[in-house]
Amino acid sequence: MQFDIHQSDPVSLARRGRLTTPHGSMDTPGFTVVGTQATVKGLLPEQLEALGAEAVLCNTYHLYLRPGPELVAAQGGLHRFMGWHGPMFTDSGGYQVFSLGFGLEHGIGKSVGMFPDEDRAGRGGGGRGGAQGKLSRVDDDGVTFTSHIDGSTHRITPEDSIAIQEKLGADVVLVFDEPTSPLHDEAYTRVALERTHRWAERCLAVRRRADQALYGIVQGGAFEGPRQESAAFIGGLPFDGFAIGGSLGTSKAAMHRVLDWSIPSLPSERPRHMLGIGEPEDLFACVERGIDTFDCVAPTRLARHGVLYTPHGKLHITNARYRDDGGPIDPACSCPACSQFSRAYLRHLFVADELLGHVLATMHNLHYILGLMAAIREAIGRAELPRLKAEVLAGLGSATAIGGADDV
Amino acid sequence: MQFDIHQSDPVSLARRGRLTTPHGSMDTPGFTVVGTQATVKGLLPEQLEALGAEAVLCNTYHLYLRPGPELVAAQGGLHRFMGWHGPMFTDSGGYQVFSLGFGLEHGIGKSVGMFPDEDRAGRGGGGRGGAQGKLSRVDDDGVTFTSHIDGSTHRITPEDSIAIQEKLGADVVLVFDEPTSPLHDEAYTRVALERTHRWAERCLAVRRRADQALYGIVQGGAFEGPRQESAAFIGGLPFDGFAIGGSLGTSKAAMHRVLDWSIPSLPSERPRHMLGIGEPEDLFACVERGIDTFDCVAPTRLARHGVLYTPHGKLHITNARYRDDGGPIDPACSCPACSQFSRAYLRHLFVADELLGHVLATMHNLHYILGLMAAIREAIGRAELPRLKAEVLAGLGSATAIGGADDV
Repeated sequence: MQFDIHQSDPVSLARRGRLTTPHGSMDTPGFTVVGTQATVKGLLPEQLEALGAEAVLCNTYHLYLRPGPELVAAQGGLHRFMGWHGPMFTDSGGYQVFSLGFGLEHGIGKSVGMFPDEDRAGRGGGGRGGAQGKLSRVDDDGVTFTSHIDGSTHRITPEDSIAIQEKLGADVVLVFDEPTSPLHDEAYTRVALERTHRWAERCLAVRRRADQALYGIVQGGAFEGPRQESAAFIGGLPFDGFAIGGSLGTSKAAMHRVLDWSIPSLPSERPRHMLGIGEPEDLFACVERGIDTFDCVAPTRLARHGVLYTPHGKLHITNARYRDDGGPIDPACSCPACSQFSRAYLRHLFVADELLGHVLATMHNLHYILGLMAAIREAIGRAELPRLKAEVLAGLGSATAIGGADDV
Repeated sequence: MQFDIHQSDPVSLARRGRLTTPHGSMDTPGFTVVGTQATVKGLLPEQLEALGAEAVLCNTYHLYLRPGPELVAAQGGLHRFMGWHGPMFTDSGGYQVFSLGFGLEHGIGKSVGMFPDEDRAGRGGGGRGGAQGKLSRVDDDGVTFTSHIDGSTHRITPEDSIAIQEKLGADVVLVFDEPTSPLHDEAYTRVALERTHRWAERCLAVRRRADQALYGIVQGGAFEGPRQESAAFIGGLPFDGFAIGGSLGTSKAAMHRVLDWSIPSLPSERPRHMLGIGEPEDLFACVERGIDTFDCVAPTRLARHGVLYTPHGKLHITNARYRDDGGPIDPACSCPACSQFSRAYLRHLFVADELLGHVLATMHNLHYILGLMAAIREAIGRAELPRLKAEVLAGLGSATAIGGADDV
């Protein structure tokens, strides 16, 4: 993998560049579309490409359980299996495995206030994990967990995670780590952090595929000391790139502080990925703080709930006000949904529980986010990022609180 | 509407022609793809076109209840609402409304042995209709029925059905009739038939739109006398075309007899539509007996259950034998599913309950049926229909019993 920085923003840490993988390149800052189970909800790869998608991120936990890494490898790897021939990431499975534990324990999703995370492995698994309701147990060697699909018991170590990801064959793979939740205290966060650091070294030691980039993950919760230590430790290891993971605190300001504590210790010539963040205003905040790539289920998940991005905030298409609204979701949008269909038709599809509603909404939201990323790249190129940010945020207004109830 | 017959088969009643509507034409014999709720499950209109679809049939009962004909009319009609700009049919709602009654009463779908009809209005409505569990009551003026969506009470007369279909704005609309089930006896079938005939005249009397073709429907169950009388009566009225509806008996032979009794009395220069039939071997039997157009939910419904058409019979993609099968559904097929994806991937999508599985399976089955119709047209043109039929049926073998368990 090669990472070239073409331009740096004069007033922030933002940079414009290109990540080149054995399966083509993606411009940065860029958004990797989440295809959890080796598919982006309802879309063909050619439709993703037409929307401007440059990279896809799949989920090691889900693919390990179903259909299994051996099967994917025997089918020629994930690119061939799912028909996506561009750059591809896999996460390590750490977040999903641990959310089986702390998700049930703390009753929360990735970050406080996020849209309810119905795809996370922990959902629906309550009661399978024994007395405390936990579905995963960590020790210094690895994690034992219960499948959310059939209740079977599994164990993954850092070495296993790398072996699984090498079988899946993505271009960018992540170390196996122990993320913490916003409700873990600093003392436990340090315990998990030290384990995460030892696991990072073990992942580096066992990686075999030279055609895969391996990213380290900075943890440390929303605590200044642990985040800085983690960034220094992980940033000092010979990873091909770095990701920011784990708890980002309970507010946007806390997330910004986490980045401000982490980024300075990461080698500036290597790419930086922000795990699980992708709301429009967050993209600006992270890009300004030096993030190069993102992944987030929000555009596709919100779409399936009929929540649609517009330059003026989120639109809930099932709202009765759109019943006979003949206009498109967004008059300025050129996506397949906006160029052919009315809000009234999209609302009908959602109310009637028709698949095409999910497909069109997903296309629209991805078109919006990918278009926003392209605009951000262009703005960096013209040294106009602050102006673009001000324009976009003014359009979104104060109503863009996460959870998006703008038009309700 | 114009109907031109270009060629007649020397050894059967099959004919090749073209139906020209205000929204373009369709070659006949042709298949209208069912888009019950103003959408073909998960597919964009451009994808339908690319698959070779020439016409779509929507459902008056469903669209009457949701989103309502006034809304569709205010949005510019069904073509504009759903983005399908080619020929379009609507059925009259008769079948759905009456299946609320006899479906529950007799516990059956359209024809014995058909794939369970989970889309029919009667499903899930049990118990809402009062003491006998019926959700519809017929009288000589019309039908009172209970919505399967919210239990509200509605009434539709033949005049209402035409008014609704004129608001929806399809190119071909159908008379409101009273279909009977295979379990109705000849006496009741005659009662229903006489009502159907009076209603046919009432529909003709109130139709207003000159840009819509109105088709009469031949009823009479699987009884020789009633079928012949109905064909003679309906065939003698100034309809633009004719459909064969209601019970076709409990075997394929019975269905063939129904056609043999009906077709001779229908004016040969006008088009004939077969309601709800579309299994591969049935297409041949009906085309040979003089049918010009078809509609059937089978290709799309079977697809959603992972049942895929192949020249060698139906393939159940969730079968364990396809778990690591790297080949396409059908090596000879050029559809988007077969040209890009393996059986192993499609099986994974179905097992993981991913939307893309439904989309790809639907594309494949429609590609198969539309391709088969095109082959039938070509064969008529070359006077080789018997040879094509023999080849196709030999491929399908004896395992193509409706319900399709070929590979189980």
